[in-house]
Amino acid sequence: MNSTLPTIDNLHDEALAAQVRQRLDQLTKPQGALGRLEALALQVALVQGCTHPQWLAPQLVVFAADHGIAAQGVSAYPPEVTAQMVLNMLAGGAAVSVLARQHGLALTVVDCGVAHHFTPQTGLRMAQVCHGTADSSIGPAMSEAQCASAIAHGMQLVQELSGNVLLLGEMGIGNTSSAALLMCRLADLPLADCVGRGTGLDDAGLAHKTAVLQRVLQRHADVQGVLPMLAAMGGAEIATMVGAVLQAAHERRVVVVDGFITTAAVAVAAALAPAVLQRCVFAHGSAEAGHGRWLQALGVQPLLNLGLRLGEGSGAALAWPLLVSALQLMDGMAGFASAGVAERSDVA
Amino acid sequence: MNSTLPTIDNLHDEALAAQVRQRLDQLTKPQGALGRLEALALQVALVQGCTHPQWLAPQLVVFAADHGIAAQGVSAYPPEVTAQMVLNMLAGGAAVSVLARQHGLALTVVDCGVAHHFTPQTGLRMAQVCHGTADSSIGPAMSEAQCASAIAHGMQLVQELSGNVLLLGEMGIGNTSSAALLMCRLADLPLADCVGRGTGLDDAGLAHKTAVLQRVLQRHADVQGVLPMLAAMGGAEIATMVGAVLQAAHERRVVVVDGFITTAAVAVAAALAPAVLQRCVFAHGSAEAGHGRWLQALGVQPLLNLGLRLGEGSGAALAWPLLVSALQLMDGMAGFASAGVAERSDVA
Repeated sequence: MNSTLPTIDNLHDEALAAQVRQRLDQLTKPQGALGRLEALALQVALVQGCTHPQWLAPQLVVFAADHGIAAQGVSAYPPEVTAQMVLNMLAGGAAVSVLARQHGLALTVVDCGVAHHFTPQTGLRMAQVCHGTADSSIGPAMSEAQCASAIAHGMQLVQELSGNVLLLGEMGIGNTSSAALLMCRLADLPLADCVGRGTGLDDAGLAHKTAVLQRVLQRHADVQGVLPMLAAMGGAEIATMVGAVLQAAHERRVVVVDGFITTAAVAVAAALAPAVLQRCVFAHGSAEAGHGRWLQALGVQPLLNLGLRLGEGSGAALAWPLLVSALQLMDGMAGFASAGVAERSDVA
Repeated sequence: MNSTLPTIDNLHDEALAAQVRQRLDQLTKPQGALGRLEALALQVALVQGCTHPQWLAPQLVVFAADHGIAAQGVSAYPPEVTAQMVLNMLAGGAAVSVLARQHGLALTVVDCGVAHHFTPQTGLRMAQVCHGTADSSIGPAMSEAQCASAIAHGMQLVQELSGNVLLLGEMGIGNTSSAALLMCRLADLPLADCVGRGTGLDDAGLAHKTAVLQRVLQRHADVQGVLPMLAAMGGAEIATMVGAVLQAAHERRVVVVDGFITTAAVAVAAALAPAVLQRCVFAHGSAEAGHGRWLQALGVQPLLNLGLRLGEGSGAALAWPLLVSALQLMDGMAGFASAGVAERSDVA
């Protein structure tokens, strides 16, 4: 791992885990009856390193960039939609804007490399390393220096961010292509298992996308190493997210992962530092074909399965109330003794 | 169907459905990208009979009662826990209390037949038809008159309830036994497919519970008809919920179904009037063994699968933000035209 990247320590504290399980087991409910919410409370306690974890100032950050590969017709939508949707998010009209309002999540959009010149405005952070990556079917999407800059931007962004939990979102026409390419190489799976319909390709569009991505893989077949692969085939928003995830993990923030693209960033970060995954909560399983297989390859289970395929952080925002509940239940429920509720009659 | 029960009309309005789909498709997202939330928005629009459905004063109602069958040792917890948990809910210390606070849900506990004399208090509604049902392994749990009274109580309760959505919860030591018996008869499935560990029986406890329930089934094998079966083997909280569900469906309220026990009430109501299911949103698939099979038999899919097995309405409350999101997204998102976002480039 690159020595300039933050270190991620392995979370392992059996004594703390036992204390948290004891807290959960004295609440007025059968042991384990809150299912995955109990596992979630335990995970957050271990990340925060305390028996009484709390959420502070949750931050939903949408990483946006354009992809040169979009010129090859791999998306159902034209590339200018990336910039249009950034403006829509900032104006409050995108799905993620509505969900962030519903749940009181601070929303920041980061221009990591959109092919557009935005006017500075509230909620928009400038961190461009390009105005759209180069077309990876012709050459590397980014230079290694651009990729390193993007990672540094992501790290700095999180350093300056308040709160202790980062919800990931993204926007970038063509970015399911970049994510599929990274999945294919990182998870060592056949391309056909990694490519999906993105924003809604038909069968012909999917076949064309697969053929284009096959060419990209061949062109960069000699590239070895996680960061060179990220530069060659990734996107500026994915690289910036990699830095943000590494920094968040270093600072022991919980990272709430959205769909296919944000999983790509987390998978890259985890390839660099596996303990990253201990900090991650996977919000939902996307309808994008490769997502389920990638989560399986990472050995993780998402909280929601609602057939979403929107990105933006919409799944992370939808799962957020469950993360709030996990901690509020642990704090707010009465114990058997204080509530005068009898415990099990069939065990000592 | 009994002529004193409310009528439930079949929801069928192709013109309205087309209008709602059009609303959803002009929002700034790929068509269908919000997955099940779009199906949910459409369902709620059809229940409310309008293109712009709204949630009004959501009501979480916990139906509580004791079960004579508990005397046979079918639960891991002693029967007095029902009353203790009712008091815990009213004092704000139960899981459902915490979740109702988190989501701003009005919480009412209904004493449908708890073996306890409660002092009247805010949030508690008296609607007892017994102080615990009789032991169904010896005779009918309720007389048909008691069962009819419970149904009438449930109907009246909903008539007096504000709002347009009812979230179901329940509390009753022994009530997974009553629900399993009803499932076995209504869904015509082997008893072994219907019986589960409830609040946490071990293998020996599960075998004992199954043997007891087999005897109950044999004792009431000659009972025919949905309401006589409900009286013979059901619980007072299940019967009261049946009335509440029928009345809510009649009034075109959405009904948010929690776990195994509330599914029993909905299945009874649907056996009387199948169109009830059109109004129901199934919040979660419980870890209780029979629940998944029963949902499958009813042809429905739950929103969440979090391994919950608590009841109380906890799953309904946890799913509630998703129902809110479904409508807020439809109302709050910008359209392609107004947001200046380009539509698909690959279709006309």
